[in-house]
Amino acid sequence: MTAARFQRLRQVLECRQPDLTIVTDNVHKVRNLSAIVRTADAAGIGTMYCAMPDKDYKAFKGTAMGSHSWVSVQRQPDVSAALRPLKAKGYQVLATHLADDSVDFREADYTRPTVILLGAEKLGVSAAGCELADMHITIPMRGMVQSFNVSVAAGIILAEAERQRQLAGLYSERRLDDQAYHRTLFEWAQPKLSEYCRESGLAYPALNEDGELVDGLAWQHAVRDGSATTFDW
Amino acid sequence: MTAARFQRLRQVLECRQPDLTIVTDNVHKVRNLSAIVRTADAAGIGTMYCAMPDKDYKAFKGTAMGSHSWVSVQRQPDVSAALRPLKAKGYQVLATHLADDSVDFREADYTRPTVILLGAEKLGVSAAGCELADMHITIPMRGMVQSFNVSVAAGIILAEAERQRQLAGLYSERRLDDQAYHRTLFEWAQPKLSEYCRESGLAYPALNEDGELVDGLAWQHAVRDGSATTFDW
Repeated sequence: MTAARFQRLRQVLECRQPDLTIVTDNVHKVRNLSAIVRTADAAGIGTMYCAMPDKDYKAFKGTAMGSHSWVSVQRQPDVSAALRPLKAKGYQVLATHLADDSVDFREADYTRPTVILLGAEKLGVSAAGCELADMHITIPMRGMVQSFNVSVAAGIILAEAERQRQLAGLYSERRLDDQAYHRTLFEWAQPKLSEYCRESGLAYPALNEDGELVDGLAWQHAVRDGSATTFDW
Repeated sequence: MTAARFQRLRQVLECRQPDLTIVTDNVHKVRNLSAIVRTADAAGIGTMYCAMPDKDYKAFKGTAMGSHSWVSVQRQPDVSAALRPLKAKGYQVLATHLADDSVDFREADYTRPTVILLGAEKLGVSAAGCELADMHITIPMRGMVQSFNVSVAAGIILAEAERQRQLAGLYSERRLDDQAYHRTLFEWAQPKLSEYCRESGLAYPALNEDGELVDGLAWQHAVRDGSATTFDW
């Protein structure tokens, strides 16, 4: 890896927003999920959640692995399983849903810890999802068609979240804690080696300014003679 | 047609923005074009232009007619043919293109007569398109992926155009002239009859509050005896 490439990985990680995420509520078209992952990456989201049956998720992972390299996509069996742990951590849940109490999506405060809950292609956000939401948001529509494509809606809402967070300075300082930052940086710079370390119960070794092992030979020796630092993954 | 449905058609037409449009520069995936048409409708765009080979356009019209009911999509053989007539009418051209002189998409003034020029899936806006543009605009990206899906980019930019035009009161008064308004209203309310009139060289007859002919029987008699008002379509 070049120093420039490693520098770019660090810059992107320094913009990651650990308190902003997406939950999809049975969005099932692979092309929509892939576009949402790509848009999430652009807004600095590092982890998102798909509530969907395992079968559909396998098809998604199978066909769209490329877009997953930079965003961790985690499946949950249903929307409640996806939302409850985030709500317990203090995230507000903003559901894209048209109801009597819906507000313009720009009125929400995206600088708070926030989940954007996106509904399925035809059915929208489920009753369970709407129930768990703190606010229902909508995007103004001036035409005959009654809804946006779900990945377009995700893009419009995340662009507003990005705008608010940029104004609040949330992309100007690193938001990930040291552990998450260094772990992710190692996994991005050394994907195969990180997999080997996790399988072998080894701690990630240190990287130099080029994203390579500080002393690769010494580390290989240490792994062979059992003296390399271990880690309980 | 019910009075409520006819009222909805009129409301949407009263929001149409004849001085806002989209030109796609060889966007060729049907699903992207369909999502762009749907998003254009939501922003009040009544006519958009696709610069693309005739073959691709036929495939698009064939598979995605549903989304065309409310937005007139016009093919042009190349981006120059699409842009020149609009530039001659005073439209500014905003090309989604990353270059040294690109500005944040929010810095543009979308209340002016505006074309948003969207580039092809992999290649982006062509050299000819960039050359004809008055401004290059970009959407901030904080992640590893270098571009948005084109229909997502369209949604993000049109949401900003909608925001600015709403603040400027451009959705609060009818923008279409009388002729375009009444012609489109008739075509939406009476699609089959409007086709018959155009094929037969007849003017559209008047509609009542339910979107039906004011005196259908009298008009049928007039058509039969050749006394119905004609029009050179």
